[in-house]
Amino acid sequence: MVDLKDVEPQSSSDIGAWNSEADVVIAGYGIAGVCAAIEAARAGAEVLILERTGGWGGAAAQAGGFVYLGGGTPLQEALGFADTAENMEKFMLAAVGADADPVRIADYCRGSVDHYRWLVDCGVVFKAEFWGEPGWEPPHDEGLMYSGGENSAPFNTVATPVPRGHVPQMQDKRTGQKGGGYMLMRPLAETAEQAGVRVDYDTRIQRLVVDESGRVCGVIARRYGKELAIRAHRGVVLATGSFAYNQDMVAEYAPLLVGRPAAAIEEHDGIGIRVAQALGAQVTAMDATEVAFFGDPQLLARGLVVNGAGQRFIAEDTYPGRIGQATLQRQDNQAFLIIDENAHDAACKTESATTFFRQQPNWVAGTVAELEADMGLPEGSLQSTVAQYNADASVGVDRQWGKKPEWLAAIGSPIAAFDMREFTAGFPLGGLRTDLDGRVLGDGGDPIAGLFAAGRCTAGICTGGYFSGASLGDGSFYGRRAGIAASAAELPERN
Amino acid sequence: MVDLKDVEPQSSSDIGAWNSEADVVIAGYGIAGVCAAIEAARAGAEVLILERTGGWGGAAAQAGGFVYLGGGTPLQEALGFADTAENMEKFMLAAVGADADPVRIADYCRGSVDHYRWLVDCGVVFKAEFWGEPGWEPPHDEGLMYSGGENSAPFNTVATPVPRGHVPQMQDKRTGQKGGGYMLMRPLAETAEQAGVRVDYDTRIQRLVVDESGRVCGVIARRYGKELAIRAHRGVVLATGSFAYNQDMVAEYAPLLVGRPAAAIEEHDGIGIRVAQALGAQVTAMDATEVAFFGDPQLLARGLVVNGAGQRFIAEDTYPGRIGQATLQRQDNQAFLIIDENAHDAACKTESATTFFRQQPNWVAGTVAELEADMGLPEGSLQSTVAQYNADASVGVDRQWGKKPEWLAAIGSPIAAFDMREFTAGFPLGGLRTDLDGRVLGDGGDPIAGLFAAGRCTAGICTGGYFSGASLGDGSFYGRRAGIAASAAELPERN
Repeated sequence: MVDLKDVEPQSSSDIGAWNSEADVVIAGYGIAGVCAAIEAARAGAEVLILERTGGWGGAAAQAGGFVYLGGGTPLQEALGFADTAENMEKFMLAAVGADADPVRIADYCRGSVDHYRWLVDCGVVFKAEFWGEPGWEPPHDEGLMYSGGENSAPFNTVATPVPRGHVPQMQDKRTGQKGGGYMLMRPLAETAEQAGVRVDYDTRIQRLVVDESGRVCGVIARRYGKELAIRAHRGVVLATGSFAYNQDMVAEYAPLLVGRPAAAIEEHDGIGIRVAQALGAQVTAMDATEVAFFGDPQLLARGLVVNGAGQRFIAEDTYPGRIGQATLQRQDNQAFLIIDENAHDAACKTESATTFFRQQPNWVAGTVAELEADMGLPEGSLQSTVAQYNADASVGVDRQWGKKPEWLAAIGSPIAAFDMREFTAGFPLGGLRTDLDGRVLGDGGDPIAGLFAAGRCTAGICTGGYFSGASLGDGSFYGRRAGIAASAAELPERN
Repeated sequence: MVDLKDVEPQSSSDIGAWNSEADVVIAGYGIAGVCAAIEAARAGAEVLILERTGGWGGAAAQAGGFVYLGGGTPLQEALGFADTAENMEKFMLAAVGADADPVRIADYCRGSVDHYRWLVDCGVVFKAEFWGEPGWEPPHDEGLMYSGGENSAPFNTVATPVPRGHVPQMQDKRTGQKGGGYMLMRPLAETAEQAGVRVDYDTRIQRLVVDESGRVCGVIARRYGKELAIRAHRGVVLATGSFAYNQDMVAEYAPLLVGRPAAAIEEHDGIGIRVAQALGAQVTAMDATEVAFFGDPQLLARGLVVNGAGQRFIAEDTYPGRIGQATLQRQDNQAFLIIDENAHDAACKTESATTFFRQQPNWVAGTVAELEADMGLPEGSLQSTVAQYNADASVGVDRQWGKKPEWLAAIGSPIAAFDMREFTAGFPLGGLRTDLDGRVLGDGGDPIAGLFAAGRCTAGICTGGYFSGASLGDGSFYGRRAGIAASAAELPERN
């Protein structure tokens, strides 16, 4: 039960004096907030960001840094990959699935090359090097990688496979300062501040303020225990991140994620969604979730992933987040990795950004029958799965799930199994419904005057399936849109 | 994109004269509406039902008639089944799954025996005869049947299996007049009218009317092209059914059902949900769906149901609605029934309420290998599935999915396959969020004054998995609650 009593909007007529003001007030200084700020400031607005922590960055600065871009970016072209907006759109529609928003996806794909250029103009550096191995992220500072299973079944038959995971060049370390997300945020934050954007840190929004006409004209925020009334002459942009750490919201909207948040920060408490809901804002795709799977893709690609009935259920060389979604959403969170010693040793010699996922096996046996019994799988189940797989490997075609021939090899002996049950976690993808200009839509489907939003407090391009880079992608893309729209919002008469 | 512009509430101050009035105004004369009406009238309220068609009944009167009841009803006891509220609760929590509302389920289970008695007191007749064969519904007028997989894996290990599908005694015909749903509705409608309930037919609600305090005080309805203002002194009860036939809502909330509505009536256009949403009402479980599967359970139980990869994915002797949900939600709507001639012939000699689902096979072959090739399944996939199943049958235990031993028999030759891809349809289960008294909850989590709802325009007991009888069950149970609460609602001063 999601309670909104504590976030009901406040009437501006009840406010004696405003503590501060700006044309555009932005809540949250992560990827969406910084992009909104830059665009609003460039459009001539006075911009004030309210950030609840002591510094810029949000979840973005701690992320690996993928930005999902394509359609023929200069980086793709420099590395010899031919892509088009239409090809990108085909992949995205298939990968998101039945819940896809085709209008938003088309919009995003068509704007992608320009958005790449905009990021580069802001100082973001993408190194022209491609990483082609299975992995969650590149192990070094490579700038481009497959990040959504574009080159794996079934998507490699739907669209021409091209990599679209663009990673800002990092400096040795994968996360934190010098990681890809940090190296995305830093030049953007510098750009924003050079453009005159002001920031109040340690300031968290509590409620929206509306004027007599119902228009959002400010926020109530809290800093060091004190409530502040902050006026927004043109608009408020919500960019406060997901509801991953709001237990009530997760239980209500995305119950498969209860107790398993990941790739989110604790500040993601859903506040932006809630203050807008209290004003009648619509939410959408609230049950959509990104799902991480705690396996090293170099091992996964070389093994068999089976469910609790000993059956394969996916091409193991696909985007590991797809394995995570399939495991959590369709297999009751039950998965095991089956791999023989040769394949295991080969995998462990490779480079990977996630070697920490190479745990010790839970079971090792000389035969599949023994392994199956040790694991407690239904008698005969794993044996028939392996027999089928080995027959497929002998002809070089995975007839059942389409794993690429390069990863097919008969399972030999000794053979190991890894218990990967409950090896999933993730963050929710749903949020406020916005139009393509980042305007928050109310009950009636019309924009709520004065209210804008972007990033993971909104539903973005991934309203079902997911690919890495989608969140920094739509957060930055629609953050800009929200900033532009907010700065252009009709200025009510000052009184 | 669900648009609410046309259903925005109207202010009572804009209404010159009311066309009619009552203490409690109920929209919809199906199962929830009739039960609300009876209770409100018995509590002393003047009750007016607005029904958009020309007669009572709604979807209920066209249904098979299962009412999901248990905990030791006189019918269960008469037929030798020992049940308790706790046992019923265990089953329901497991069958609904992660999205279950434990508070509502406990409430429903504890009230179930009393509710049975109430229905019988209203004149509903349940014949003390049990039907124990696999089926969607009993083939004759039997009064009790398993209707949710209580006696199948995995639920038969979670709770003591007892049947809870209570069917009002029908007269020869399965649906329409004389069917179970009709025989449920008729005595209830008679009871309502004997209690003095008035009904305006051909009258459909358009919008809610609110007074200066925001309290719902009436509805705007339409009859023969004319708009009517109908005042409700105590409360309005929404009982207008699901959104199965609102294409925008289905696309937005339950996209797997796009183009496949079933077991709903075209009047189920979501109007009750929409008028309340326009007033800030919360909705919940909007993606939950009942899913019918167009197979005869007598055939399913004796065969193998496999997915597009040739794998089994469920115990075939379970509630067929579970096969439908698993197929649509987890198997990309891909299913085939594999059955040999002996089993097919045996099934076709049985009685079933759904013999019309016994189509001709799409493929027949002498060997599994041939069949697999004819069907275009991955080479070896069906062969290993059948080999595994036959090995299990030889020891009398379905080790993989737990089908009961009575339905296990090795697959022989000749062997047939039925193409059951896209053989699913259903209705959505989500709707307005209400408290246990049927009060509609608004944005802030508080009840919206004067507004009540029950039936499929609300989220009821099945917010995930489903069992037959849940809709007539929670519609009648919480319809009563809504009627009681509406009749007791604080009476504003008449002016």
